[in-house]
Amino acid sequence: MKTKYPDDTWALHTDLYQINMAETYWEDGIHNKRAVFEVYFRKLPFGHGYAVFAGLEKVVDYLQNFHFSDSDIEYLREEVGFRDDFLDYLKTIRFTGTLRSVVEGEIVFGNEPLLRIEAPLAEAQLVETAILNIVNYQTLIATKASRIKQVVGDEVTMEFGTRRAQEMDAAIWGARAAYIGGFESTSNVRAGKLFGIPVAGTHAHSMVQTYHDEYIAFKKYARRHKDCVFLVDTYDTLKSGVPNAIRVAKELGDEINFIGIRIDSGDIAYLSKKARKMLDEAGFPNAKIIASNDLDEHTIMNLKAQGAKVDSWGIGTKLITGYDQPALGAVYKLVSIEEDGKMIDTIKITGNPEKVTTPGLKRVYRIINKNTGKSEGDYIALEWENPSEEKRLKMFHPVHTFIKKYVKDFEAIELQRDIIVNGELVYELPDIKAIQNYSKESLTFFWDEYKRTLNPTPYPVDLSQACWDNKMQNIEKVRQEVAKLSNENF
Amino acid sequence: MKTKYPDDTWALHTDLYQINMAETYWEDGIHNKRAVFEVYFRKLPFGHGYAVFAGLEKVVDYLQNFHFSDSDIEYLREEVGFRDDFLDYLKTIRFTGTLRSVVEGEIVFGNEPLLRIEAPLAEAQLVETAILNIVNYQTLIATKASRIKQVVGDEVTMEFGTRRAQEMDAAIWGARAAYIGGFESTSNVRAGKLFGIPVAGTHAHSMVQTYHDEYIAFKKYARRHKDCVFLVDTYDTLKSGVPNAIRVAKELGDEINFIGIRIDSGDIAYLSKKARKMLDEAGFPNAKIIASNDLDEHTIMNLKAQGAKVDSWGIGTKLITGYDQPALGAVYKLVSIEEDGKMIDTIKITGNPEKVTTPGLKRVYRIINKNTGKSEGDYIALEWENPSEEKRLKMFHPVHTFIKKYVKDFEAIELQRDIIVNGELVYELPDIKAIQNYSKESLTFFWDEYKRTLNPTPYPVDLSQACWDNKMQNIEKVRQEVAKLSNENF
Repeated sequence: MKTKYPDDTWALHTDLYQINMAETYWEDGIHNKRAVFEVYFRKLPFGHGYAVFAGLEKVVDYLQNFHFSDSDIEYLREEVGFRDDFLDYLKTIRFTGTLRSVVEGEIVFGNEPLLRIEAPLAEAQLVETAILNIVNYQTLIATKASRIKQVVGDEVTMEFGTRRAQEMDAAIWGARAAYIGGFESTSNVRAGKLFGIPVAGTHAHSMVQTYHDEYIAFKKYARRHKDCVFLVDTYDTLKSGVPNAIRVAKELGDEINFIGIRIDSGDIAYLSKKARKMLDEAGFPNAKIIASNDLDEHTIMNLKAQGAKVDSWGIGTKLITGYDQPALGAVYKLVSIEEDGKMIDTIKITGNPEKVTTPGLKRVYRIINKNTGKSEGDYIALEWENPSEEKRLKMFHPVHTFIKKYVKDFEAIELQRDIIVNGELVYELPDIKAIQNYSKESLTFFWDEYKRTLNPTPYPVDLSQACWDNKMQNIEKVRQEVAKLSNENF
Repeated sequence: MKTKYPDDTWALHTDLYQINMAETYWEDGIHNKRAVFEVYFRKLPFGHGYAVFAGLEKVVDYLQNFHFSDSDIEYLREEVGFRDDFLDYLKTIRFTGTLRSVVEGEIVFGNEPLLRIEAPLAEAQLVETAILNIVNYQTLIATKASRIKQVVGDEVTMEFGTRRAQEMDAAIWGARAAYIGGFESTSNVRAGKLFGIPVAGTHAHSMVQTYHDEYIAFKKYARRHKDCVFLVDTYDTLKSGVPNAIRVAKELGDEINFIGIRIDSGDIAYLSKKARKMLDEAGFPNAKIIASNDLDEHTIMNLKAQGAKVDSWGIGTKLITGYDQPALGAVYKLVSIEEDGKMIDTIKITGNPEKVTTPGLKRVYRIINKNTGKSEGDYIALEWENPSEEKRLKMFHPVHTFIKKYVKDFEAIELQRDIIVNGELVYELPDIKAIQNYSKESLTFFWDEYKRTLNPTPYPVDLSQACWDNKMQNIEKVRQEVAKLSNENF
């Protein structure tokens, strides 16, 4: 973007209240207290049974380059009214903390910590908004893509959403997230360049209109694009488009590699079956049929149930915007803070019970049953616990605590890894193909019941007994303080 | 963003098929034919009665800086496989065409041209995707903001959505669009800096948790932030938050300017009424109550109906994502192309009747009744027509043509203006406050029946008789060609 600020940074990409709080902490001399925040979402999106984590690569980029530029400081001084003493401090801020995180492509669930930021209080507070902005969107789209893949199976899926994406970053990072979730390619060439994703595309209706004659248009296109797919619905799919595609494929024969046709409107079930028959009868049984036009997992499942003959799916709007739930609600919550040199727990209660936080430093484990090779659930324990040492692990529901089971002969795999330690990157960011493969492999640890798109079985995300007890103690402590205050005031 | 490509451009921010088509046209020697494309959407979003156009400033930036960089060309060569002869041409491309557009903040409707791009064919084709990406999102959010404003009235609305926005561009351009639609401020500091929007914000729950004591936290905050708003729902809104806010406000007295409190969870209707009473009784009748927590026009209307005492609304997720319809479906359609030195019409038919395009060069007029000062509808005429010369203007429904009226004593105001002419910017981009004011003034031309949020009266967007006749003739011509082809093939 051309802006009047060549030194525009992402440090100002935050809510004003973060800077207000940083100022309060700095004024009070507590800005360098160690603080630990966790990122998690409460509810899985789309009624899906799992989510696919994405966004880490950009979070790392953001944290590694975190600083306020001269024009940022100038703006805060002149337009917002912050004073010089605080701004002098702000100028010096870099991210010197530690980031632990699940890796991109990981299968994740509600109410478990995805990222953990441990840093001087002011730094940790300032980076909240951008981290949520990045992780919420990218995880949402990777999840939607993986969900669509559950329905599509082994057929090819292409991300076609740029024109309907919510501005430019969503288009390119959404394309990347879709690839992580299992899509094969994107139409966005810039996403292809920046992230190394395969790019795909044919031609548009406007090309047919330009030549006024579909047959001529296809022929002109095929002259240069030997691997050709013809868009057949500019005038009339069955009466004009498919016959012209067949005519050109026959005429050009071995001069081209006739890959197939694309249908972008009308009754895809009906048209694809008719088109399949026409292609087969014309001697092109290997020609593919590509469908697009406002598709998502629901329409695709219906089209398959109707016997639609589609080999490849171009998916735009409904994927790139997460149409039926366009926001993931991940939050960033303070769980522990330094007092007199040691870390103590913090909690937030609020009027909505599901918004109560789980205090303390924690670790998340995936409990793999060694006999089945499948996961029994995720297990959140306090930092000092070591579930691997347990012979028999008690796993119970964190709300309906009578729902419980004991797991033996298991492996407890820790999900978060060290990414940045004291400001230094210690994790090697994998390439995009490796991330996609990791995600596919991770899915094999889960029973199909967790992966179906309608009414999946809820996957257990449990607290250890110690973690649960600690939460209850913290709630009780706040209750007593509020009661005391209440007696004082009324 | 740090990328391995310091010369990253927006030219590659396009669908691959655009470059495929450009190559076909170049190979065929028709890449410099004049072509005219129009941008329009078919259906108003959110069931709303009008939309607010936004995105022009970024479209201008994009077109003025359109070029492929060295690394772009290299990528197309090495990774996508385009050949040197075509890439040599691509290197030289700039946008040399003409852009006509409605201005930002304009009130617009379905099925009327918003932008018109007239340019050499290949250029016009290459810029399609990015233009739609920009205009679709920004117009969607400006519309949602204006819709929320219809319910909120004169109370203050603040855009708080960054953490739930679909990546970073959506956060900042969405904040700008919300301001165009009538919002007073944003929490995103970068949007404030880049666009000159007022920024707003207080503090978060984490600040109260940091001090473990709400009273102390408020007091620390107030020491530096004299104009202070306290977030009161970290532990218990009525038993702890509001009493502590009052206590601090009383203790600090004239040392601070106690603006009010913010409630971010629980039953906003109940809590705001109780909090109002407590503030009044404590001697703070002017203290404001700010509400947030997943608000939109529906919840706000309900809260108002229940007598909630809210002075100011912080609106995030539901605004910044256009939650209930997160994509606007604007399209970019070829309406005319040069043949043998003169422009001829083009049409696209397809299987969905509503997707049939309206061929030809056109102009859009808003027909203002001089007696009422209100608009009678929008009127799309062919380029050569001059509705202002008509004594009595016939306006009829473009589908149900029997619905018609005759308008006398009117003014026909053309909506599109010249923005870029032959590659040169001829329009002075207004500042953001002027755009917001223009939008507010433009709304006064419409009866309330078009502006209500539930079941608004459909606003007429009509074709002139000549434009309608021309469309029918073009449809008939294609039908005959398809019929001919059909007879040939079967």
